[in-house]
Amino acid sequence: MQATGSLRCERAKTAAGWTGQRCQGLCTGARRTAAAPRAVAAPPDTAAAPEPSTAKLSVNRPQKDPEALQFRQLPTFQDCFPASEKHYREVEHEGTQLRVPFRRVSLTGGSGLFDVYDTSGPQGFDPRQGLPKLRSGWVAAREARGDAVCTQMHYARQGIVTEEMAFAAAREGLDPEFVRAEVAAGRAIIPANKRHLELEPCVVGRKFLTKINANIGNSAVSSSIEEEVEKLQWATIWGADTVMDLSTGTNIHETREWVLRNSPVPVGTVPIYQALEKAGGEVEGITWELFRDTLIEQAEQGVDYWTIHAGVLLRHIPLTANRLTGIVSRGGSIHAKLCLLDHKENFAYEHWDDILDICRRYDVALSIGDGLRPGCQYDANDAAQFAELLTQGELTRRAWEKDVQVMNEGPGHVPLHKIPENMRKQLEWCNEAPFYTLGPLVTDIAPGYDHITSAIGAATIGALGTALLCYVTPKEHLGLPDRDDVKQGVIAYKLAAHAADLAKGHPAAQRRDDELSWARFEFRWADQFNLSLDPVTARSFHDATLPQEPAKTAHFCSMCGPKFCSMNISQELRQLAQQGEQAQQAQQGEQHAAPAAPATEAGSAVQARAEPAAGEGGAPAGQEQSAEEGMQRMSQQFKEMGAQIYH
Amino acid sequence: MQATGSLRCERAKTAAGWTGQRCQGLCTGARRTAAAPRAVAAPPDTAAAPEPSTAKLSVNRPQKDPEALQFRQLPTFQDCFPASEKHYREVEHEGTQLRVPFRRVSLTGGSGLFDVYDTSGPQGFDPRQGLPKLRSGWVAAREARGDAVCTQMHYARQGIVTEEMAFAAAREGLDPEFVRAEVAAGRAIIPANKRHLELEPCVVGRKFLTKINANIGNSAVSSSIEEEVEKLQWATIWGADTVMDLSTGTNIHETREWVLRNSPVPVGTVPIYQALEKAGGEVEGITWELFRDTLIEQAEQGVDYWTIHAGVLLRHIPLTANRLTGIVSRGGSIHAKLCLLDHKENFAYEHWDDILDICRRYDVALSIGDGLRPGCQYDANDAAQFAELLTQGELTRRAWEKDVQVMNEGPGHVPLHKIPENMRKQLEWCNEAPFYTLGPLVTDIAPGYDHITSAIGAATIGALGTALLCYVTPKEHLGLPDRDDVKQGVIAYKLAAHAADLAKGHPAAQRRDDELSWARFEFRWADQFNLSLDPVTARSFHDATLPQEPAKTAHFCSMCGPKFCSMNISQELRQLAQQGEQAQQAQQGEQHAAPAAPATEAGSAVQARAEPAAGEGGAPAGQEQSAEEGMQRMSQQFKEMGAQIYH
Repeated sequence: MQATGSLRCERAKTAAGWTGQRCQGLCTGARRTAAAPRAVAAPPDTAAAPEPSTAKLSVNRPQKDPEALQFRQLPTFQDCFPASEKHYREVEHEGTQLRVPFRRVSLTGGSGLFDVYDTSGPQGFDPRQGLPKLRSGWVAAREARGDAVCTQMHYARQGIVTEEMAFAAAREGLDPEFVRAEVAAGRAIIPANKRHLELEPCVVGRKFLTKINANIGNSAVSSSIEEEVEKLQWATIWGADTVMDLSTGTNIHETREWVLRNSPVPVGTVPIYQALEKAGGEVEGITWELFRDTLIEQAEQGVDYWTIHAGVLLRHIPLTANRLTGIVSRGGSIHAKLCLLDHKENFAYEHWDDILDICRRYDVALSIGDGLRPGCQYDANDAAQFAELLTQGELTRRAWEKDVQVMNEGPGHVPLHKIPENMRKQLEWCNEAPFYTLGPLVTDIAPGYDHITSAIGAATIGALGTALLCYVTPKEHLGLPDRDDVKQGVIAYKLAAHAADLAKGHPAAQRRDDELSWARFEFRWADQFNLSLDPVTARSFHDATLPQEPAKTAHFCSMCGPKFCSMNISQELRQLAQQGEQAQQAQQGEQHAAPAAPATEAGSAVQARAEPAAGEGGAPAGQEQSAEEGMQRMSQQFKEMGAQIYH
Repeated sequence: MQATGSLRCERAKTAAGWTGQRCQGLCTGARRTAAAPRAVAAPPDTAAAPEPSTAKLSVNRPQKDPEALQFRQLPTFQDCFPASEKHYREVEHEGTQLRVPFRRVSLTGGSGLFDVYDTSGPQGFDPRQGLPKLRSGWVAAREARGDAVCTQMHYARQGIVTEEMAFAAAREGLDPEFVRAEVAAGRAIIPANKRHLELEPCVVGRKFLTKINANIGNSAVSSSIEEEVEKLQWATIWGADTVMDLSTGTNIHETREWVLRNSPVPVGTVPIYQALEKAGGEVEGITWELFRDTLIEQAEQGVDYWTIHAGVLLRHIPLTANRLTGIVSRGGSIHAKLCLLDHKENFAYEHWDDILDICRRYDVALSIGDGLRPGCQYDANDAAQFAELLTQGELTRRAWEKDVQVMNEGPGHVPLHKIPENMRKQLEWCNEAPFYTLGPLVTDIAPGYDHITSAIGAATIGALGTALLCYVTPKEHLGLPDRDDVKQGVIAYKLAAHAADLAKGHPAAQRRDDELSWARFEFRWADQFNLSLDPVTARSFHDATLPQEPAKTAHFCSMCGPKFCSMNISQELRQLAQQGEQAQQAQQGEQHAAPAAPATEAGSAVQARAEPAAGEGGAPAGQEQSAEEGMQRMSQQFKEMGAQIYH
């Protein structure tokens, strides 16, 4: 599970995870080099960028004195997934070897090994050093060729399968050409700024695994750089496919720099937040020029996608006047205020082409914001919301004309029966660009539990085709999430996204459910824990009533006890039936085929096992009679053996 | 908020909640009478019941020495809902005064008071005494009349609106006649055994508020009577509409007695569990006679509904042979084993008419079990499951012929896209009898979080019309839930049920969302907490970053801080617009109507406020222009005032 990387802390090389302590003695040398040489490793920006007035900030390395930061020790990958290890699958792509990450779960039974999609990134690196720059070579080659446009959509439309596409395809167990075609059509994006070299690319689109985003970032009243890096690491270890740094407090630039240099997943931002910070918190101080410079600054740092609320038009704002909760998007309300201050059109809409030019140069994907999303059930699916969505469609098509990758943001707060209309209109009005929704929350009465109210909406809209689900933590509406809230939000969304994948019929989705269910039926408790989203929690819940080690292989649990275990009775019946069959087959000289090789979540062979004879919902004709005969035999044997339920 | 009751502990009368300490001194007298006089208060069973061989157990009071039990102190009603009090609405029903419980929330602003549906039951009673017998008079009158059949369905079909119907209707803010008609048609049930006099009746049906059930009960390896009573109280305080006592360990009868005498909500059981315990844990020892006696014993105690797996037929069992996880219902597997032992038909199916006769005498509702429900995504919607459902329909119609109330149990584990088929077939095959589902879980990969995986399925199937949702706790598949797990499960299901009610368009549902959203928009933090499902948790999450009391009225929170608060900006815009309007109206001599009187969740007037002009999704023609003019004025004023975001 060692990943490559030249600048990592020496001590970390030997540890299962980064120790989190300030390095002393052994790694002093490595530590000294921390602040400097990153710029050398990054490829120079050969294309002439617009002149940013904040160019001095665009140095692509941590700004803050790394010595001054005090990172805490996080639980390691091994702590979180005791029976797992990092596994890299070697994939050749036009002469380049891609090392595609998976988390390999070791099982005590069944197929022995099970690989799952892994977002945790290279482990064991000191945040002061950042992650290794996986994409250096890929990007350098394009720069050397002098490519003026470097978006994945641009390459896809030229028929080129990039390393990013091949990498993302391998993670999903799909054909790279399929990924290319979806990106070319605008139905999928691969957010991958050419400056974010630490990225392990993934594909976001409705025909792929449903992805989840975790919001991190400080606010004026809370958090620090260390905490945000910690949340990033914590979110990705549990499965966040992307993160958004929504910092609105101090040190926005530096916080983002630390996040980017340590992020194996795409990083998104809402640039208007930093523009407001630069304007001293006064909305009226935000100008297009300030905003543009902020974009360039962030693009240089490597931000992979931007939420820009260009669809909040002046004429839409009056549509919110009779809402119960008005405008609830921070970015949306800032743009609305700017519009009203001068009674002028949204400058992001007016300067859309300029924005696209910046995106096109760095391959920053656009996540067209839903600044007028509803903030409560009452306001769901109203005129303001849909007016903006229609404009999002127009902006999407204009972006595609410049080969800029796009997704559309959506609500928010929507009751269950109004969710399908959102998906339907987005698909139709935005030409099937990936949809990226926040939840939605399906009721407003459960603050403190909005990771659940929104996971319900997220699973529902994900099953209908939403590509990226923005998580909500238990602290939503109440406070800034801490590390544990981040984990709760990520897990709730991982299960919602997975439920959506099952409903969509993604070929890789159901294997994990089947493997875990099989382990459950066979009382392989450890495998049941280790195949779950959160093995340590699952085990601790089992320990709460049956902590003894033998209970981890016992054929019952504390819910039912030994005599009431239905699975136990089921197994017993099945074993007896098999004994009867085997005896019969031995007489007839027949043999069952042995179970097949390792199962994996993504793309390779799945173990052959008890397949329902006729798939969903039907027994084959004629089976009933013979099965009934078998049951009679079994009944007789059962009684002969004493008919014990539990031995 | 004092409830009536003759046998309660004297000390408890003066306390906000029961203290949980052993009573000493003052209430010795009350305590001494605890074990005896309950039978006097209960009406005698004048109708000749079948002779139960276990008649000695049917004494309708706690068996175990109350002195030996050590109840712990639970957080009180006031602790859980600091700004709420019990409120009883007086409803006259044919000369009888019904006192219908609500929880009344005091608000700091807006409408002042908000009543919510309340399942917590009378507070402040010592479990050793049990709850007051609300239904004594109602049942006694029927007994005095000599009614041989006493089911709610029987009365409903005769055109009689019972006290139970009127009571349940008042809780929902609906017409009692509507409840009667739904019960008569079999589309709704009111589980209310004539021996469960402590019950506050509720109605379960698809046209009413979606109800939730909490499972409690011990197992062979865990729990005690005290813990089960505690779980009952804890589940109902948070909103469980029914509980099932699924005890499988020791003292099944006594545990149930304690539960019933302290339960304000319907109590269900799975009688085959006790039959198995009586048979010493040996399935082969269960006979029809033993089962029948168990039913009578439980009916005498006051059990309100029974899960009986009479739909598990001998011919269905072979259909499970190729399943991934076989039979996962405990009751289902016991019946299956019994079927196979003698290769005979399920005795519950064979003796269905005898079972109905018992139900008819006591008004025990039947919850026809889904013994062949799928135990994993792989097995969902298979032949075995639907074969049983078809039989459930047949059993339902037979029950109705005898005026016995029925609901049907359903899965279990079902991926999102296969949920609608379950509801569709149940409605069609079971003639619209209420559906009662366990979840369903929409993925199997998240043990430890199955309250969430199943809340997703529960909200989905609830929105489609499922009347009763059986909760799942975080411990599902892993261990026996403790008190905190019970709360987590109940809250997850309350929000899922409420999401379903919003989607179904129950007239009372959205008012609470609107009231809470309005409080949120007005920065009435305390009201936002107090209108939520779990005020203390919501407040504690807010306290985590902004513990100071002034923050509870601050116009921002820790998520965004003062300068980034969209709601604040929205409000500011709206206030300015209003100022402009008011100035205009003052010139024109107009007045706005004052906000109307108290809002309630159930049935009375809801406050008139910012109604969207054209409801869902449209601004009225012509509004856009005038609003835009208003915005221009506002823009000017805004700038004149200095355009401050936060003052």
